[in-house]
Amino acid sequence: MDEFSFIEYLKKKIPADPRVPVGIGDDAAVLRPASGYQIVVSTDVIVESVDFRIKNLSPEKIGRKALAINLSDMASMGAKPVAFVITIGKPKHISETWLKHFYRGLLALAKEYDVACVGGDFSSSKEFFASVTIFGEALPHQIAKRSRARPGDWIAVTGALGGSILSHHHDFTPRIREGLFLVKYITPTAMIDISDGLVQDLSHVLKASKAGAVLDLDKIPVSRNAIKINRGNKEKALAGALSDGEDFELLFTVSSRKKGMLGNSWTKQFPKVPLTWIGEIVKGPSRITWRQSGKTAMAPELSKKGFSHF
Amino acid sequence: MDEFSFIEYLKKKIPADPRVPVGIGDDAAVLRPASGYQIVVSTDVIVESVDFRIKNLSPEKIGRKALAINLSDMASMGAKPVAFVITIGKPKHISETWLKHFYRGLLALAKEYDVACVGGDFSSSKEFFASVTIFGEALPHQIAKRSRARPGDWIAVTGALGGSILSHHHDFTPRIREGLFLVKYITPTAMIDISDGLVQDLSHVLKASKAGAVLDLDKIPVSRNAIKINRGNKEKALAGALSDGEDFELLFTVSSRKKGMLGNSWTKQFPKVPLTWIGEIVKGPSRITWRQSGKTAMAPELSKKGFSHF
Repeated sequence: MDEFSFIEYLKKKIPADPRVPVGIGDDAAVLRPASGYQIVVSTDVIVESVDFRIKNLSPEKIGRKALAINLSDMASMGAKPVAFVITIGKPKHISETWLKHFYRGLLALAKEYDVACVGGDFSSSKEFFASVTIFGEALPHQIAKRSRARPGDWIAVTGALGGSILSHHHDFTPRIREGLFLVKYITPTAMIDISDGLVQDLSHVLKASKAGAVLDLDKIPVSRNAIKINRGNKEKALAGALSDGEDFELLFTVSSRKKGMLGNSWTKQFPKVPLTWIGEIVKGPSRITWRQSGKTAMAPELSKKGFSHF
Repeated sequence: MDEFSFIEYLKKKIPADPRVPVGIGDDAAVLRPASGYQIVVSTDVIVESVDFRIKNLSPEKIGRKALAINLSDMASMGAKPVAFVITIGKPKHISETWLKHFYRGLLALAKEYDVACVGGDFSSSKEFFASVTIFGEALPHQIAKRSRARPGDWIAVTGALGGSILSHHHDFTPRIREGLFLVKYITPTAMIDISDGLVQDLSHVLKASKAGAVLDLDKIPVSRNAIKINRGNKEKALAGALSDGEDFELLFTVSSRKKGMLGNSWTKQFPKVPLTWIGEIVKGPSRITWRQSGKTAMAPELSKKGFSHF
């Protein structure tokens, strides 16, 4: 099977979609934007030797992850994902069967979230890579940027944090429904998905919003994986929850008044997804102050954070 | 300079744009679609060992090409390009300076065509790659697909064809203005950019439109490069014009009536870009019939065509 036959194979696997007047098979795809909505665009690439080892992860899971990390970016903007395109670098050590399984994982998640695959491009390459660009739609006043956290706002996170390397980093649930719920009902002043680790991603929000934060160490929702990976050491598990990457949970800030409006509607809507209030935005430089048992605490010793590709 | 500093560097190089409410630096970018327009999306990837050698081509030209091939896809739909995102795989043998020059070439072309760079993602990798996704806008009734060529339509190409490997494949002019002019004034029934070679791209149109074509061998506009590369051998130069890839000229079909409406307005509008009528669409299977001196001719012997990455 050559490249063109593979594209024909894919076209049969990809259902028609009324939002897509022109899909795969032309020079470009055409999308029909919903009236009054803005287009939200994000792109993420995964590379074989950097993000996974072909031997350690099934092609279905790699395909799923290539899309899931992009869905997570849509969630953090409060956008509804609509469509995506993908470019793939295919090395010789990747078989056609492997690639079909990659697409199986990718398209299963696409179906689950009702996102249309509208195009792509293939190349040969020395190692496998998959670059996805996703498009969503959002009402202009509901878009959750990073830059509008204000002193007095509360800080919350979804789910539990840390130790995602054990499995969560490839089987996480993108928080699309949660993100849409939040922008609709309490319009967060800032929102971000936790990909670099809670502290680093909160720092992005603080820098963009020109504000500081106080974090309650007692309140951080530490995941079972963070405890397991640190063999029950609570301090290390907490450090993991604060700094491990790829949680793909939502971190957001919201005014006190809107927090009150939330009441117990979150728990009704998402009984299985914890929502935890972990601190407040404060005036001052873009720094985090730590609090424990109601008092100012020393910063926990975190593992080295941030990953530069340069 | 690490990855985050490089992104800060880029943010300063990239001008603000009123069409982009949220640009680089958030989880996603936001675009404001023009009312009544549809979004046209395309993606193309270039890979070091496949599409170029770092040693043989300047980073500015590689950056230019990464965007230019995507602009060409917009041209072939008759869409006005608006914005793009890019993911980059950066191997160790690529320096930061090289990457800055890559962006210089990319952003210079972006400025020339008024296309905003709205986001991206970096990874390390074993070889350099750049995956661009471009977004344009088009009025629904003006979008030029591949599938509506009808028997009796005329077939035309812009520019001159063949031998692009000599230089044209990286310094070509994406036919954006020409594509927009065509959809506005004569609404081609089908349009495609010639990336795989005239015969192969025409075949894509024929297959999508379920029709055949007659091509006049006397009329094919053979480029100087095609003649040069074939050392003046006219037959071989013609074969090159018919089958060489990466011309990035427009091939389109149009009804007889609309062709008449064009008159000399093309020449007035684009005095430097030839427009040549090379044949007609006919009833029947998706095959090309050759004509020379008004008579049916043998098919020219073409070089091996098509490039499968599998």
